[in-house]
Amino acid sequence: MIKIAVLGYGTVGSGVVEVIHTNQEVINQRVGEELDIKYILDLREFPGSPVEHLIVHDFEQIVDDEEVKIVVEVMGGIEPAYTFVKRSLLAGKSVATSNKALVAKHGAELLAIAKEKNLNFLYEASVGGGIPIIRPLATSLTGDIIDEITGILNGTTNYMMSKMYHEDADYDAVLKEAQAMGYAERDPSADVEGHDACRKIAILSSIISGKLVDFEDIYTEGITKITLDDIQYAKAMNMKIKLLASCKRDGDKLCAIVAPHLVSKEHPLYNIEDVFNAIFVKGNMLGDSMFYGSGAGKLPTASAVVGDIVEAAKNPGHSVMATWDADKLELEDKSDTTKKFFVRMKGAVSEWKEQLQEVFGRIDIVVLDNKHDEFAFVTEIMSEGSYFAAAKAFPQICQMIRVK
Amino acid sequence: MIKIAVLGYGTVGSGVVEVIHTNQEVINQRVGEELDIKYILDLREFPGSPVEHLIVHDFEQIVDDEEVKIVVEVMGGIEPAYTFVKRSLLAGKSVATSNKALVAKHGAELLAIAKEKNLNFLYEASVGGGIPIIRPLATSLTGDIIDEITGILNGTTNYMMSKMYHEDADYDAVLKEAQAMGYAERDPSADVEGHDACRKIAILSSIISGKLVDFEDIYTEGITKITLDDIQYAKAMNMKIKLLASCKRDGDKLCAIVAPHLVSKEHPLYNIEDVFNAIFVKGNMLGDSMFYGSGAGKLPTASAVVGDIVEAAKNPGHSVMATWDADKLELEDKSDTTKKFFVRMKGAVSEWKEQLQEVFGRIDIVVLDNKHDEFAFVTEIMSEGSYFAAAKAFPQICQMIRVK
Repeated sequence: MIKIAVLGYGTVGSGVVEVIHTNQEVINQRVGEELDIKYILDLREFPGSPVEHLIVHDFEQIVDDEEVKIVVEVMGGIEPAYTFVKRSLLAGKSVATSNKALVAKHGAELLAIAKEKNLNFLYEASVGGGIPIIRPLATSLTGDIIDEITGILNGTTNYMMSKMYHEDADYDAVLKEAQAMGYAERDPSADVEGHDACRKIAILSSIISGKLVDFEDIYTEGITKITLDDIQYAKAMNMKIKLLASCKRDGDKLCAIVAPHLVSKEHPLYNIEDVFNAIFVKGNMLGDSMFYGSGAGKLPTASAVVGDIVEAAKNPGHSVMATWDADKLELEDKSDTTKKFFVRMKGAVSEWKEQLQEVFGRIDIVVLDNKHDEFAFVTEIMSEGSYFAAAKAFPQICQMIRVK
Repeated sequence: MIKIAVLGYGTVGSGVVEVIHTNQEVINQRVGEELDIKYILDLREFPGSPVEHLIVHDFEQIVDDEEVKIVVEVMGGIEPAYTFVKRSLLAGKSVATSNKALVAKHGAELLAIAKEKNLNFLYEASVGGGIPIIRPLATSLTGDIIDEITGILNGTTNYMMSKMYHEDADYDAVLKEAQAMGYAERDPSADVEGHDACRKIAILSSIISGKLVDFEDIYTEGITKITLDDIQYAKAMNMKIKLLASCKRDGDKLCAIVAPHLVSKEHPLYNIEDVFNAIFVKGNMLGDSMFYGSGAGKLPTASAVVGDIVEAAKNPGHSVMATWDADKLELEDKSDTTKKFFVRMKGAVSEWKEQLQEVFGRIDIVVLDNKHDEFAFVTEIMSEGSYFAAAKAFPQICQMIRVK
């Protein structure tokens, strides 16, 4: 029998318990032994709940119990999660976590401890919820150099972008709806400002580079400035606006960014709707691939955590996960990264076209029938630095969205 | 240094050599040792090729060489692949293979030998080419009971179906084009009759059930009867026709089928075009997920094989793959499986509607403007047995396609 402890009986924690209880028989078969939840750490009591007898309030009871072989950290946040995870590893217990903030900030150190002690520190659920992406990168796509990972990594914002596109509902209305549905928090900034997606792409970037990609180095822009007018232009161009978190190889360097992008119909990410997540991966041998599924939610996230528990249980003394060094990777300077830019501008095309062409070179003009006081254009591929230098001359520019 | 031998220097075999040479540095880092191709077994000589010095013609030289730790079987077909793989395992060498026919027919036995000898028998490339699907099922989705796997598992037929849909080209024309592009063989029957997809879904079914699903038990229907008229009806219904290979849980039983299906716009498989493959997986906790990528082709397939070589090299003495027992799983009787049926029928709607409703119950009629001598209808969900019993009464039925 393999004893485990679950730290935190919130949404994901109760999901983990539910998954283990519902699929007990098949999970035990796969592990080859019975998996038994010995403790659940939470400040609350849960009187009358079927897990009432498992609840403990003191982490020391867990870390001191040699019977506990696997600790499941599903509390979220940096502290006390970091201290508890580190102490669990140092005490010889493998850890499975869904905590993207923890992995993005302290992953290198925790992975190093796990490796040194021949334990597993597993974090599949920290990116893409139930979608297997971390283990495929670590154990399947190992013949490839990964040239690009671009993901729709935040379900809340994708839900909002989908609603705005399909129902012509404006930003504030869809945010309220997302909050009512329980997809967005009362303070939605972690989602809508892109911070959540930023931590996730930092983790994926660290895996494919083998070095620490600091989430604080990644330029991050949320969806708060996206309006229904932008969506109208997107429709006119047969595109959609998606919050993309992306990491690309450019020569020797990686460039990473989180920002809303216009995505064309031909790209596999165009079709990802509602709260679904998807991760597009381009390998230098594999070519294009994509992993799609529920990026959040109690049971899908818990499913990924339980997958990690099973791996940890099946591989005692054998580290199976992707790791990265604590050396920080210097990302490419954002102003050197290149792409097309979609730009909206006040005024009439006839008035500005020549000056724009002088500064931006070839541009594709987009005019909407119902917009008389403005127009838009899409640049050729150019660097961010050149774009911002050129755009300075036009205070009439009222919006810029990058083009995937 | 880890010495490997490649059996067969055809498309996939030369791809494996190319992947290893191109990505040598990063692959060696991941393995933690240098990976070295010591032999390539082929009947041909390849004079002047950079691998000329590695070519051997006698398998005994490989199996007798204790330095060779991993054998890569990319010859295809059952013999001599089966004998070579079995002898390699018995001689203590791990094996990576892309050979779906071999895995579908002899997988259980070869996996058992590998397990007993603490070796790896890895076969990621046998299904979905470069798409990681087998290892995610084996090592990530282990907290779930998999309720359904439905795949577009054959690139050739998906290319043909896409061409017919987008270019209104008829079956014979797209087949010729697929042959000219090198996607279809001169004898295309393995693809167009569904045999290739059948072996692949048999492998996936065996993994999720843990028991041998015999490919010969799976009802298999190809795309040869699909006409442009069918495509027109599909378009009128906002659907596409795709060759699906599917395995679903129905109570205690699994039902599996390979057949063309009408797929609605809402389903993730609807958007899979050209030679791409995709595998839709539904877990009882995870919900819907999908894995998408290049299902065939030299480098994507070789990428998956090399991923397996890396896993085998990193895990000596430690079996990492999904296995299944040699006990054969009895599939649900096809006539008990249920779905909707799309049916085309000669005659006028007015003439037949009442009789059809008497026999089929509620039906949705589809009439095309340019078809005056026929109409179509879609049934409610019913069993295959009931459908065929009911359809007997109507010799005017000229086509039936299942609805996903």
